[in-house]
Parts: sequence; C-alpha cells; structure tokens
Amino acid sequence: MMIIMQPGATKEQIDHVIEHIEEQHLSAHPIFGVEQTVIGAVGESHTVPTSAFETLPGVLAVQRISQPYKLASRQFHPKNSVFPLDGFTIGDQEIPIIAGPCSVESRTQIIETAQAVKEAGANALRGGVFKPRTSPYAFQGLGKEGLEYMAEARALTGLPIVAEVMAVSQVPVMVNYVDVLQIGARNMQNFNLLRAVGDTRTPVLLKRGMSATVEDLLMAAEYILAGGNERVMLCERGIRTFETATRNTTDINAIPVLKSLTHLPVVLDPSHSTGHYDYVTAVARAAVAAGADGIIVEVHPDPAHALSDGRQSLTPENFATMVRKVKAVAEAVDRCLVSASSPLPVGRVTNKIVG
Amino acid sequence: MMIIMQPGATKEQIDHVIEHIEEQHLSAHPIFGVEQTVIGAVGESHTVPTSAFETLPGVLAVQRISQPYKLASRQFHPKNSVFPLDGFTIGDQEIPIIAGPCSVESRTQIIETAQAVKEAGANALRGGVFKPRTSPYAFQGLGKEGLEYMAEARALTGLPIVAEVMAVSQVPVMVNYVDVLQIGARNMQNFNLLRAVGDTRTPVLLKRGMSATVEDLLMAAEYILAGGNERVMLCERGIRTFETATRNTTDINAIPVLKSLTHLPVVLDPSHSTGHYDYVTAVARAAVAAGADGIIVEVHPDPAHALSDGRQSLTPENFATMVRKVKAVAEAVDRCLVSASSPLPVGRVTNKIVG
Amino acid sequence: MMIIMQPGATKEQIDHVIEHIEEQHLSAHPIFGVEQTVIGAVGESHTVPTSAFETLPGVLAVQRISQPYKLASRQFHPKNSVFPLDGFTIGDQEIPIIAGPCSVESRTQIIETAQAVKEAGANALRGGVFKPRTSPYAFQGLGKEGLEYMAEARALTGLPIVAEVMAVSQVPVMVNYVDVLQIGARNMQNFNLLRAVGDTRTPVLLKRGMSATVEDLLMAAEYILAGGNERVMLCERGIRTFETATRNTTDINAIPVLKSLTHLPVVLDPSHSTGHYDYVTAVARAAVAAGADGIIVEVHPDPAHALSDGRQSLTPENFATMVRKVKAVAEAVDRCLVSASSPLPVGRVTNKIVG
Amino acid sequence: MMIIMQPGATKEQIDHVIEHIEEQHLSAHPIFGVEQTVIGAVGESHTVPTSAFETLPGVLAVQRISQPYKLASRQFHPKNSVFPLDGFTIGDQEIPIIAGPCSVESRTQIIETAQAVKEAGANALRGGVFKPRTSPYAFQGLGKEGLEYMAEARALTGLPIVAEVMAVSQVPVMVNYVDVLQIGARNMQNFNLLRAVGDTRTPVLLKRGMSATVEDLLMAAEYILAGGNERVMLCERGIRTFETATRNTTDINAIPVLKSLTHLPVVLDPSHSTGHYDYVTAVARAAVAAGADGIIVEVHPDPAHALSDGRQSLTPENFATMVRKVKAVAEAVDRCLVSASSPLPVGRVTNKIVG
Repeated sequence: MMIIMQPGATKEQIDHVIEHIEEQHLSAHPIFGVEQTVIGAVGESHTVPTSAFETLPGVLAVQRISQPYKLASRQFHPKNSVFPLDGFTIGDQEIPIIAGPCSVESRTQIIETAQAVKEAGANALRGGVFKPRTSPYAFQGLGKEGLEYMAEARALTGLPIVAEVMAVSQVPVMVNYVDVLQIGARNMQNFNLLRAVGDTRTPVLLKRGMSATVEDLLMAAEYILAGGNERVMLCERGIRTFETATRNTTDINAIPVLKSLTHLPVVLDPSHSTGHYDYVTAVARAAVAAGADGIIVEVHPDPAHALSDGRQSLTPENFATMVRKVKAVAEAVDRCLVSASSPLPVGRVTNKIVG
Repeated sequence: MMIIMQPGATKEQIDHVIEHIEEQHLSAHPIFGVEQTVIGAVGESHTVPTSAFETLPGVLAVQRISQPYKLASRQFHPKNSVFPLDGFTIGDQEIPIIAGPCSVESRTQIIETAQAVKEAGANALRGGVFKPRTSPYAFQGLGKEGLEYMAEARALTGLPIVAEVMAVSQVPVMVNYVDVLQIGARNMQNFNLLRAVGDTRTPVLLKRGMSATVEDLLMAAEYILAGGNERVMLCERGIRTFETATRNTTDINAIPVLKSLTHLPVVLDPSHSTGHYDYVTAVARAAVAAGADGIIVEVHPDPAHALSDGRQSLTPENFATMVRKVKAVAEAVDRCLVSASSPLPVGRVTNKIVG
Repeated sequence: MMIIMQPGATKEQIDHVIEHIEEQHLSAHPIFGVEQTVIGAVGESHTVPTSAFETLPGVLAVQRISQPYKLASRQFHPKNSVFPLDGFTIGDQEIPIIAGPCSVESRTQIIETAQAVKEAGANALRGGVFKPRTSPYAFQGLGKEGLEYMAEARALTGLPIVAEVMAVSQVPVMVNYVDVLQIGARNMQNFNLLRAVGDTRTPVLLKRGMSATVEDLLMAAEYILAGGNERVMLCERGIRTFETATRNTTDINAIPVLKSLTHLPVVLDPSHSTGHYDYVTAVARAAVAAGADGIIVEVHPDPAHALSDGRQSLTPENFATMVRKVKAVAEAVDRCLVSASSPLPVGRVTNKIVG
Repeated sequence: MMIIMQPGATKEQIDHVIEHIEEQHLSAHPIFGVEQTVIGAVGESHTVPTSAFETLPGVLAVQRISQPYKLASRQFHPKNSVFPLDGFTIGDQEIPIIAGPCSVESRTQIIETAQAVKEAGANALRGGVFKPRTSPYAFQGLGKEGLEYMAEARALTGLPIVAEVMAVSQVPVMVNYVDVLQIGARNMQNFNLLRAVGDTRTPVLLKRGMSATVEDLLMAAEYILAGGNERVMLCERGIRTFETATRNTTDINAIPVLKSLTHLPVVLDPSHSTGHYDYVTAVARAAVAAGADGIIVEVHPDPAHALSDGRQSLTPENFATMVRKVKAVAEAVDRCLVSASSPLPVGRVTNKIVG
C-alpha cells in the first residue's frame, strides 16, 4: 500500500502515519520527494482497510498496489482455465456458441428453438425461466415449469442448458436441471447469491454489471471461486454509457484486458451488448477476433411475438448465418468452433415434441 | 405507442404494421410525413411489448409515450406522499437527518454513535449489519447480533433505525427490528427482494443503482408499491461516471426531476455520492437547496479505525457542524429540520450501555 | 513519479528501470513489497513523460504523484483569487449573476433582455454572437453585428458583457467589445484558442468540457494562466452521462472539489447543466449552497420564439423569482448577491433603444 | 416532428400547439391517446427549432423524427463512398492501414519510421506536427519543420501522409503538404475548423470526440460535407466511460451502426481507443471483423523514448505482427489489405536519409 501525503504535510503528520503503519504490523518506507512524500507500507496488507490511513491528518490518498483478487488472477494461475461442458470444452481452442430465447415461453417454443439452434450449430441452449424485468407488469417467466421444458429440450437435442438464477432460494432446484447457472448483470454484486453459487459445483456464467468495472467483475468472480467452485465463465454484455444508438456499449477492450488479468474463460453476449439483431453478427465476429472464448446469443423462432427482448433476437436463419460468419473469423485467429456435433444422444431422449 | 417507420418504408410494410396494431386490439393512426411515416397505436398498450412492432419489416423504432410506472407517478397522485416515522414525518415541510456508521462494528460503537448523533441533531440511526462488500475478504457485517445492538441503541436514544436488507431470507427477521428497510444500490434491481419488501408494511429507503436512470429507479419503486407497501423513500447516492475525483457523481438534477415525476419523498446520501468526508457538508446543503426531503449520512466516532468506508465518514463533531449548516439552508428554502427532539423515551429504554 | 513493477518482475528488470530513472537525472527509491516492487523516481520529473518508463519490460504502471497543474493549484496560491469586474468582484463574498439569451438575435431582443435582467438583479449580460451549433443548418449567430448590439446594451444598462469566443481569429475584435471572454465546453481543449486568450488581459470564463474531468479543466486553465492572464473563472455546465432525463448531469461535487484544488472562482451554469428551465432554479440554489462563486443563466424574453436553447431559458419573470430564491440561499451560507446596483451609468449611455 | 403533450393537457393547450404548428407552415395531425395526446407536425420542419414547441404550456417533449444529417446519411446515398488515396482506395474491399508516430520528433525518427512501417505493410504514414496536449508543459510538436520531414518521408517511401490540423490558420499551409487532414477528437465540434476543412478538397479523417454520440459525429461530418468536401472518413477512437482499465472504451458497436447510417468509410484507431500497445492487435482485429474500412495505429521505433503516447505505440516488429494478424481476419470477412505495394516511386524521391 502506498500512502501519498499532501504537499506540505508536516514532519509530525508523516511520523504519525509511520506509527500507524507499524501499529498494523507493516513496515514503513518513506520516499521524500521534491513536493510530496510517499510512504510505502509493506507486509500483509490485504486485511488492512485503506481508510486506516485515508483519514489521518496530512494524507492525500492511499493506493493499493497488489490486485485485490487472488483466485481469479492470472498471476498465480498463469494457464487458462479449461472446463468440460457437455461434449465440448470452454477456455481452450474451441469456441462454443450458446443460443436460445430470452425467455422460455412455452414447451413448443423452447423445443423448436433448441432443435433449430442445434441444427444451425449451437453447442448449448440458453433460456430464462425466472426473468429479471425492469417493469413489474412485464412477463416474469415460467419458473419451474420452464425448467421442465428446458430439460425436455436437452433430452431431445443433447444440448446442455444455461439458465439464470435470480435468488438464493432458486439455487437448490436449479442445480438439478441446468448445466450452467447464469448470474445476470443486475445480480453481479448480489453477494449472497454469489456465495450460494460458489457453494455448488455447477459451472457459472457470470455477467458483468452494467456499470461494473473489469476489476468489479473479477472481484465478483472471486466470491464464487472462494466458495470452491472453480468453473466460472465471465461474460461481457455491454456497459452503460452516454451513447444511445445502441442499448449498451460493447466493451470490446475488456476481452484482451480480461484475458491478460485472469485465467477464466471470457464469453461475449452481442445480443445484450448491442440490443439490436442487426448488429449482433458484426459484434460476435469482433468478439472472436478479439479473443473471446465463447458467444452467447438470443435466438427466437418468431421475434415479433417474443414476450421479451424481441428486438435483439436473431431468427434461426439469421443465427445460422451468424455461425457461419463467426466460424470464418475463429479460423482466422487460429481457433475453431466446436466440431460438428454428434448425432442426437439416443439414450437421453425421454420425450418427443407433441406441441 | 408510436411506431416510427424507416424512410422509404413501403405501403405494404405500413399496412402490415397497421394490421399488427389492430391484432393487438389497438387502433392505428398513421401520420404521413415528408420523409417518414409515424403510426400511433392507441388503446390499452401497457401489456403490448414494443418488440411486437420493432421487428416488423420497415420499422425504425418504437416509442412508448406514457410513463411505464403508474403507482409512483405524480400524474395519478399529485400530492406529496408524507409518512410518519418515529416522532417525525418525511415528505412534508420538515427534513429528517438519518446518521450512523457504515457498519455496526460492536455494541459500544453503535450505542456511542447513536448517542452522539442524537445529540448533534439526527432523527434516525443508520447502521449496516449485513454488508455488501466488493471483496469477499472484507468485513461482512455482524448479522443478527448487529440488529440486537441496533435495537438497544434505539431503546436508549429513541431514534428509529434504518438498516440494509440484502436478501429475501433476511426480510422476516429484519422487519422485527428495523423501522426502515434499506435496499442498497447493488440490489436496486434485485426484483425478488423488491417484491419481498413490497409484501411488508415497513417503510423502505430505496437507493438508486450506480448506473440506474431516474426511470429505472421509479420502476424499482413500482415493484414495491405494487406489493401494497406505499411507504417508499427514494435515495440518490451518486452515479458512476468518468469523473474519478470523487467516488461517485452526485446527480443533483435528479432531485428536482424526481420531485416533478413522483409523489414519493427524495433523500440524498452525500457520503456515498461524494466518497469523501470533506465534501459531505457542501453536498448535503446543495441537496436541501435543490429540494431534498431528507439526508442520510455516515458518521463514525473514529473514522481511522472504521471497518468500512472510513474515508467518507464524518466525526460526530463534523456531523454537528453539518447539521447546523444544513439547518440554515433548510430555512432559506422555507423548510426546517425536525424540531428539537423530545427527551429520551423512558418507557422504551431496556438497557444501559456498559461497554 | 512512482513506477509500479509487475508481480514477478525480475531483478534485471528492476535494475533496468533504476538505470533509466538515473539517466533522467532523477534518484531512484525502490520499495520491495511482498508481491511487487514500487520504485519512486524523485527530482525534477515534470518534463519526464511517464512513457519513459511505461514501456520498459516488467513495468505495470507509472503514476505521477504531484499535480500536473501549478498556476491553477491552491497549493502554491492558498488564497482565493478575487477579480474586479464592472462594479463588483468575483471570488469573494458576493455572488454575481450573469444572465442573458443563448444567442443575440436582434438589437431589440438583446436590449430588452438586458434591461429586464438588470431590473431583476443580474450583474452581467451574456449573449452569444458566434454560436457553436451541432447542426450546420442551425442559426449560427449574428457575428460582429451582435457585438455592436451587446455594446449598446452595455451602454444602456451598465452591465458588463460576456460572450463566447470560438476561434483565434475572433480574439482581437472581441477584446474590444467584451468584458469577459467565454470559452465554450466544445473548445475547452482547443489549445490554440486557450493560448490566444491567455495572451490577452481580458477575464475568461472557461467552461468545462462535456467529458472533461476536473483535472482536465484545471489543465485547460493552466494554459490560459501560463500566458499571463490570471483572471480565469471556471464554469461547471454539466457532464455527459448515461442519464437522459436531463440534457446533462450537473456535477455538483465539482464545486467543493474545485474549491479545494484551486484558488480560481467557480461558476455554475444551471441552464446547460439541466437543459430545462423547470430545473434551473433548484440547481442554481444547490450551486450556491455548495459554494459556487457565481451563476450564469439563460434568459429570453420569449423562449418559444428563441432561435436556440429555448427549452432551457427562463423568462424574465422566472429569472426574477430565481434571483430572489438564490439570494435566500446565499445568505444562508454567509454570502450575498451583489448589492443593489447603482443607477444606470449616465456617462456611458450612448444610445437609446428605438427598436 | 412529434409534439408529446403532458397527460392532462387541456383542449386549449392542444389547440394552442396546433395554432403554433400552423403558424410555422406545417400541418398538424393530433392523435388522441388514452392518457396523452401526440401531435404530428408535418412539412418542411428542418428549420423549425424544437424549442418553438417545447416551451408552450402543456407540452411534455418534442421529438424530431427525421435524421438531422442529410449529406452524411445512407438514406439519400445508399452506396458506400469510395475515395482514391495515393495508390489505393478507402471504402471498398481493400482495407488500408495508416501507421506512424504520435508526433514527428525529428527528421531521422519520421523517416526511419516511415521506412519501417512501409516495409511492414502500412499504406499511409501518420505523424503529428501540431500536437494537442492536455498540459501546456508537454511537447507541442515541430510545426512546419515537421511537415517538411513528413514530405521527405513521403518522397522516400511513396506513402501518402496524414497529419492533424488544429486551427483554421494552419489549413492553408497543411493542404500543401498532407494527403489527409486529420481532425482530432478534441476538435470534433470546433465548427470553424470543420468549415475550413470543408472548403478544401483534401480528404479528411474526422475523429469522434471523447463524449460524442454517433449522431454528433455524423453532424460534424455534415459540416465538412456541406462545404463541398465529400471525402470524409470517420474515425472511432474510443469514448470516455467509467472504465479505467483502458485509456478509453472502444465503441465497437459504432462500426456496424455507422455502416448502417452513413455511406462514409469508417476507420478505427486502436492505439487511442485502448491506450495500451498490448491490446492494440486484438482490437484492430475486432474492428476489421466488425466491418471497419481502415485502421490507423501508432508505431514508434523506440516507444520508451517517445515524446508522447509511448505506452500505446507499437514497435515496428509488433506492427508487422499486427498487420499479419489483421490480414487473416480481413480475408475471413471477405475483404483484403491493400495489395503488396509497388516499389518505391523513383520520381518522387527528392532526398535521402542522412540522419
């Protein structure tokens, strides 16, 4: 920790800070500059709050030098984390594509979408069953019934499923159904929920909050990792800025920044990060070109009748085009999409679509 | 709802949109402009998602005209909402001041602080017992033990207490202890939690999220109001912008904007909105000058030893100065602080501080 | 300057940085921490770019400790700068109010407005003659003709005049007419223009850029001060954020922050910082409560027919109310508005309004 | 234009607005909704300011429907604008790469850099001779002397040159030297300068301002186009957001958004948009994947001794790697880099490097 003194801080003030540093069992290393003094506080400073010094007389600012996250940091874990999901891996050469509707709306809708996205090249199925909606008057999701339909879609297509968990109380039931628990942007700092999913051993897709810095995102991941759940994927989904031409601003810089700071896989959600289906393919390609390890995208068989987020959903046809276009870019950056999926897994098919 | 067609949209596309409008049991009112056509969709459009039109061919954008919140809107409730709290009201002429530490750290600390802030002019006591912390390694609060100490502080001083609820599971126990449930900025869109506090009849202090618009804040309030809990106070606590000279940017505009859009009381938290004790008094005065109905501020008996947020905490002495300075501004805008509090309520004193 | 090494930087890398520091005639003071090394570089480091170190192997980041501005800093100039303007001062106890239309539209309009704002309590007259407009198709100002009308308004009312200079080539003519040269937000980093006004001895009102930090603003002031022009007023006029309920977000924090960092007077423009006349009075009051040294506000005799910015302009009646309301707050913070202006200065009246 | 009335607006207020619309020679088309009335104003509304209606009693908001830019709009110019530069085109299939130092520092430096970037695949040379610096104490550029060195570098390598113009007074001399006039981010709304370059017939590279929306950028382009200069390239160079992990936030969404709104070519500057050489290649690839028509990047032979922006400059070796990596992505999106440049143009060589 570096304690930066105000210009003109007195010798007494400097000595007082040094005493405080030593009181915290740290060693003090002052550097007397031309205008200002800076005092290094060396030792086990993680548990010492910066406010221990910030409020002392003559102190201008206090700055931590070491990263506040450890388990998420590439510093102590230089190799990429690679996890197996159902039939593929994430974090290595191959780039999985997760696709599906914003919300599970009916049994027919999710099963048809699953089959369509599977055919077009998706490797996992997304679908919301508990929906965070800004309006209390909007469709709030099918809840557990939706999970049943998702399971059926998985059985029919073999696609692993990804769904958002919104509350601690939903965790026990969801881990019985889903292959990946998604934490939504609005819950990125719902610390109780982070702890709860950290206690499971189900992989987690952690979405960046709308105004979360890269460091905030890594600290949120740290909560999950600290619980012993090591399979965390980070998801850039756009941040809130002054620009209104798109729903959010895709922070494409975050991809190489995260790849340099952490060993965890990084996924991009171009549907939310742009908010408009017309821009999804361009931004999905950009993400892969920038080094993303996966793409999660909204696909709806009939966007004009979607109960949520229709404007940003691709049709299955457009999704198939997107997959083809992303594939070319993946190969140009010496990676690949997940190789042609095996035939539908007979053993797991438990049901047929009747509608 | 207004559907704005792209320049050059064809007659077929316009007719198709009109059909869709009528399919939704709305009436269509096209206006044929020089370059573009706009089609008004009139009727009960609240339950019709904008995506029903956004994805139709030839549509450029869809815009709702009416406010998406009803219960929070001043339109249907022109008079200010005024609620009684313990010994005072909020939303009317008098401006209560809520003060206390970021976290309840010990029995002594909270009781001493309660007595100090009471003496200096506070009308309610704040204190966190479940703490949302960006780091999993930081102090996480005393939990239920902290509530007991808060209750004791209330008994001794007569100050009603305000504490943050972070999870649905904490609601039942907290309503037994606190006078006001605070929803923190990070949970402003934790919709399950909003519903849960909406089901109680305990007043709620709802903090604006770091990147929430004024409309997002009103929609979050709508969730609580929709549950039947009408006593919601809105709290501006700074938004996240590019400026790094302060922890957050106080959106002072939000005060007159909220006062014009909603009947709910508006409170400002200058401790979080600035992040530095040196700026708290100036911004507290500004808030009252701009029309705020209350102030919530962090006070700690020994900021240098605070377990959280020391840098933004006032000492009791500085708090007393702040109260005096805010009082002058309140009177200049024809309002007042809560009048001199009555003597300590004998009947409720259940305990004495021993330390 | 502090050079922060990457965790795991080698001894060779550290030695290499130390050599580089010494090559720059600075002395190197390494602090060997538990995970990372930090090296202080002490001496005349102002002219050494941080990139001299940022690109060396093993360096994580480089940080300047001392403020990059000197002349603007309160550190070397602890007392407030106070300048006389025509009949009043700025930077001291009294708070001047500058008012007038966005644009000078005609002789009649500016003279009528000048008389109306004078009567309502304004101390100076603002009016744009060269207008920065986002659209090339919008009204661009009357140019020199407008300056003549401004001069006439000054002669009639005695109010000193404030007008925006947009280009270096306009400086020579403008200094013959105006009492204060305004630098607009879009030109805050037009460094050639800053130098040009720095070479004059006319007071300058420097508006903060829409996305300029407080430090950027002070660096822009430094350009003017470095030219020898010491009479610079800083003007907060709102920053661009994600919030769309108002045209800009008033950064009220900037007022106490600037007052602590610099000795220069700080003015607020609530017309631009809110963009809506309905919010102007509340925010003007907030500014004075927060410590602002002046207010600049748009007033138009007929906002519905203004050629620019009508939505944020007060009528003369509303302006008179604003002055009265701001006055009460000024007194509550132990300041005052400029005392009742003397009768119209007979000697300077050169003309009468004919219209 | 649509005039949205407040809920509860009276019949008189509505009639008054309609009269105002007709007074402006527009026709009024009211739509009477359940809660609110919206009035369309149809006709030649470009020259009617929105404030003509915004300030009328009962009006909530006024919204323009048509785009405020015409010449820049793809609506009236559906085909991509393609311009020839020296030996290649921009706006079509091939993607030029512009490279060079932030500042021209000496004859040797610019000539060596020109030769190195030419060899590594650059198609044009950038270099600043008039530098906008936030600090008045930083290196301000070599001025006209720098232009001479640039000309020499062009003669030796055949690379066309791009340099920033900062002031109207520099335009006449610069058009004699440079192939492309760059308008920097800080001058994007320096309207006098935009007009001045609009009066030339030299191609312009217009950088987006740090807090400029996509629409602001297009309006700035409109100023240049309105002067008759049709060869404008738009340049995304990062916007200012709350994220501090990078110098700016690359708005990658802006690429497909601009490609859909305008016919003008779109270039990305990954050096400024990230601020760190380590992230430049990833973001350059992303830009091409998203549809960018060109890349402009900072290259310095010795970044540690650069007088400005060393941290974001690539070495010539890293630049060569970047070109190779960008090439693969260009081909994956069915485009190409400019084909292998012809041998050095003998006739234009006027000088040899001596050092």
